Amino acid sequence: MGTRLGALVERLGGQLVGDPNLEVSGIAPLTGAGVSHISFLSNSKLRAQAAHSQAAALIVSAADDAFIAASYPGARIVTNNPYVYFARAAQYFAALDEIVPAAGIHPSASVDPSAQVAASAHIGAQVTVEAGAVIGEHVVIDAGCYIGRDAVIGADTHLFANVTFHARCQIGARGIIHSGAVIGTDGFGFANEGGVYIKIPQTGRVMIGDDVDIGANTTIDRGALADTVIEDGVKLDNQIQIGHNCRIGAHTAMAGCVGVAGSAIIGKYCTFGGAAMVLGHLTIADRVHISSASMVSRSILEAGQYTGFYPLAKNAEWEKSAAIVRNLATMRDKIRALEKTIKTLTNQDES
Amino acid sequence: MGTRLGALVERLGGQLVGDPNLEVSGIAPLTGAGVSHISFLSNSKLRAQAAHSQAAALIVSAADDAFIAASYPGARIVTNNPYVYFARAAQYFAALDEIVPAAGIHPSASVDPSAQVAASAHIGAQVTVEAGAVIGEHVVIDAGCYIGRDAVIGADTHLFANVTFHARCQIGARGIIHSGAVIGTDGFGFANEGGVYIKIPQTGRVMIGDDVDIGANTTIDRGALADTVIEDGVKLDNQIQIGHNCRIGAHTAMAGCVGVAGSAIIGKYCTFGGAAMVLGHLTIADRVHISSASMVSRSILEAGQYTGFYPLAKNAEWEKSAAIVRNLATMRDKIRALEKTIKTLTNQDES
Amino acid sequence: MGTRLGALVERLGGQLVGDPNLEVSGIAPLTGAGVSHISFLSNSKLRAQAAHSQAAALIVSAADDAFIAASYPGARIVTNNPYVYFARAAQYFAALDEIVPAAGIHPSASVDPSAQVAASAHIGAQVTVEAGAVIGEHVVIDAGCYIGRDAVIGADTHLFANVTFHARCQIGARGIIHSGAVIGTDGFGFANEGGVYIKIPQTGRVMIGDDVDIGANTTIDRGALADTVIEDGVKLDNQIQIGHNCRIGAHTAMAGCVGVAGSAIIGKYCTFGGAAMVLGHLTIADRVHISSASMVSRSILEAGQYTGFYPLAKNAEWEKSAAIVRNLATMRDKIRALEKTIKTLTNQDES
Repeated sequence: MGTRLGALVERLGGQLVGDPNLEVSGIAPLTGAGVSHISFLSNSKLRAQAAHSQAAALIVSAADDAFIAASYPGARIVTNNPYVYFARAAQYFAALDEIVPAAGIHPSASVDPSAQVAASAHIGAQVTVEAGAVIGEHVVIDAGCYIGRDAVIGADTHLFANVTFHARCQIGARGIIHSGAVIGTDGFGFANEGGVYIKIPQTGRVMIGDDVDIGANTTIDRGALADTVIEDGVKLDNQIQIGHNCRIGAHTAMAGCVGVAGSAIIGKYCTFGGAAMVLGHLTIADRVHISSASMVSRSILEAGQYTGFYPLAKNAEWEKSAAIVRNLATMRDKIRALEKTIKTLTNQDES
Repeated sequence: MGTRLGALVERLGGQLVGDPNLEVSGIAPLTGAGVSHISFLSNSKLRAQAAHSQAAALIVSAADDAFIAASYPGARIVTNNPYVYFARAAQYFAALDEIVPAAGIHPSASVDPSAQVAASAHIGAQVTVEAGAVIGEHVVIDAGCYIGRDAVIGADTHLFANVTFHARCQIGARGIIHSGAVIGTDGFGFANEGGVYIKIPQTGRVMIGDDVDIGANTTIDRGALADTVIEDGVKLDNQIQIGHNCRIGAHTAMAGCVGVAGSAIIGKYCTFGGAAMVLGHLTIADRVHISSASMVSRSILEAGQYTGFYPLAKNAEWEKSAAIVRNLATMRDKIRALEKTIKTLTNQDES
Repeated sequence: MGTRLGALVERLGGQLVGDPNLEVSGIAPLTGAGVSHISFLSNSKLRAQAAHSQAAALIVSAADDAFIAASYPGARIVTNNPYVYFARAAQYFAALDEIVPAAGIHPSASVDPSAQVAASAHIGAQVTVEAGAVIGEHVVIDAGCYIGRDAVIGADTHLFANVTFHARCQIGARGIIHSGAVIGTDGFGFANEGGVYIKIPQTGRVMIGDDVDIGANTTIDRGALADTVIEDGVKLDNQIQIGHNCRIGAHTAMAGCVGVAGSAIIGKYCTFGGAAMVLGHLTIADRVHISSASMVSRSILEAGQYTGFYPLAKNAEWEKSAAIVRNLATMRDKIRALEKTIKTLTNQDES
């Protein structure tokens, strides 16, 4: 399978410099691209590498094209944002290879008669769909998934194998939920009576917008009384935990292993590096960027990049610095004492 | 569905000030409660808000009741611990709405003939129950769960969809295991021979007491030779990892993403904030509280609150502080040199 | 079940001092071993304990044997590495008790007719095997697993219940994948266009070598264009996240909750403590050892032990030290000022 360059540009735009009838079989990185591939230059530091690429065609910015045009013999597609163009081209090629699962319900699936399953939806083997659930048009639910009572799965959404989607939760259109994710599990809510925990029923839902991706083995708690909300375009990587009653603003992205405690309200267009942690009941403004492995223990009301992790060192050096960190108060007191002594000395000198 | 205030107080206690025949439809937070709701005041800072709540009735302490009685026109239930009362009232309302799954085995489940399943238990769709397993009275095992050979599930315990509960492990009564949790997977035990790892079979079990809650996608390793033990009343949130041969003391609670390495012995009534980590073979006393994102690298023999995470800062400030942390030994040496010089100066001055 | 000491030594080697016809029923730790058990002494600090063990036989090194021979009345197996011998002996006993699942496909499994399943393989209840998958000889696939299209599972590999193994990924011989693990989920790859994320299709695979163990609920992303590679003998504990395009070198071991971001290249014979984190696109040399809860933010090109976590303290002490860490730049400036003043004073004195 493959395509003509002309067909690609017709669909995705960009300015083609070269033969529109040239056939390309797929997309590949600069190193590794062969003579039937299209590749892309999204980082100007790689201009020299691009100029010598074997690829049949390159996706480039106008600035980079000016640099490579003389030396690179292949075709070029010139566009504002080569990386975005690459993403769209990759989607184009992936769609050519995609095996779309057939509409219909696998005979081994267990679907409650009161569930509404669109005729165009695919329900895989060993799936369970409980009473009252609503499965939209062109939804794909792969093998082993569980859809709880009265849950709603929006059109064109894809649940990979072994997803658990609990009762009354909803996801919008064009979402992706990866394997092992659990949506709508009970939040961690207890009242403590003399040391013993009394469970607070978690009766809220998880309400997920359109174009949301949720990674493998990520968990999102349902709200306690109100709902947990994931707004449009949010992208969550694997192994993330979102507590009950959180709100994650539109187009915020979180890398793997992030944890967000309950009732945190996170803005739009934020990013969280891997294993960042957010305490409960905090507010994070729009366009806040948290570095990996950093702990957010206070609300952040100003956009920007924030970091907080202990720098790595050879173990022997870390042991020294950690011992001093433990005794920083002593060091501060010594400096104060020195300042005092110096002040006395100086005054003496001046006297 | 709903209830009369009188019926609620009859069941849960507390002193009712108001009409016992007043109907309430459910429970709601102070903000958001409508005229058919009951709400609660568990934080005295919210007294003013409570005084103006639209709720039909409030759960309050005697101290707070004295404050709001004059201005709040609704009914009040006066009790020692309004938050615990709220939890119980919420359970009461949740039970009214609950759809109890029918007793019996779903036709798509695969249950070994030698397994003992109580007649009152529910075995959902696509479930597998292996030989010799024992499923107690009123147990609910939702769709897609796996129950290993000779495992024991105590009465009134609920396994949500897609739980894996391995061979010979046991859980007591009234437990809850959330979706994606894996109980009794092999511990991480290897002997190293010239760089190559030789697996040590993990032949112990996981033994779980009564009233234990286990969160979604949490994993608990079986013991190597002896057992991993989770005592009564322990509450584990989502995405927690408990290593082999650990013991978690009764009524200890852990928030999401906590990790406990093998053979750690943790006391009773402890709490662990999210993403706290505990090294292996440590002992933690009763009533120890570990803050979120803190690393426990030594045994803790005294009750109290312990913390250890790097404070968050704007990235540029963190870069400065982290660079200094890397060189704290230099700073300490400079202070020592200063002290020495000062001492010389002072002695000179005194001489 | 049990064995004669002579049979054990015949199979595993070592020098037997004692009666080869002595029957032992199983293996147990020094404390807790009864008169029918074999135990082992792998830590010379426990010599005194070993000398008084009730065990019928002990696995010991020659050095330790010289110490205990006079006082310990039982049989001894003398060997170079008693811990490795213990592992092998434990495997021997575990094999005696093992219930090997019968070859064949459970009637509730859903296996595509085009999949190739070896006659000696076991496919458990509720399993799904997609078109073109290849299941090798003596493979065991427990209940609820999902095997994607054209995936390859090597001979003697064991997938515990509820594993998800995605399309086109491969694992070699003698592997173990524990419950809830997800192999070959999409990597977290997006291009950003004006704040909105455009998904980059993840068309690579996960290629796993021989003798690899993967823990419960661990996730391994498939490559974006190229493959994610896990080399021979790698051991991954539970709840680990491996990003797309990573390569994990042979015989590297990672404890629970480790996260490795995309395109990290990790050497052979490395170890990672629990909850260690590695940023993307880094290179880690062979024989690097990362401590628990440490964040690797730069490439490491030299073997050795590296650490970086904030030391735990009582909360009040941590609050003091953390406040100073936030202001270390101020402290550094004060020291500089002191140095300057002292220099002036000293020069004055010298002048």
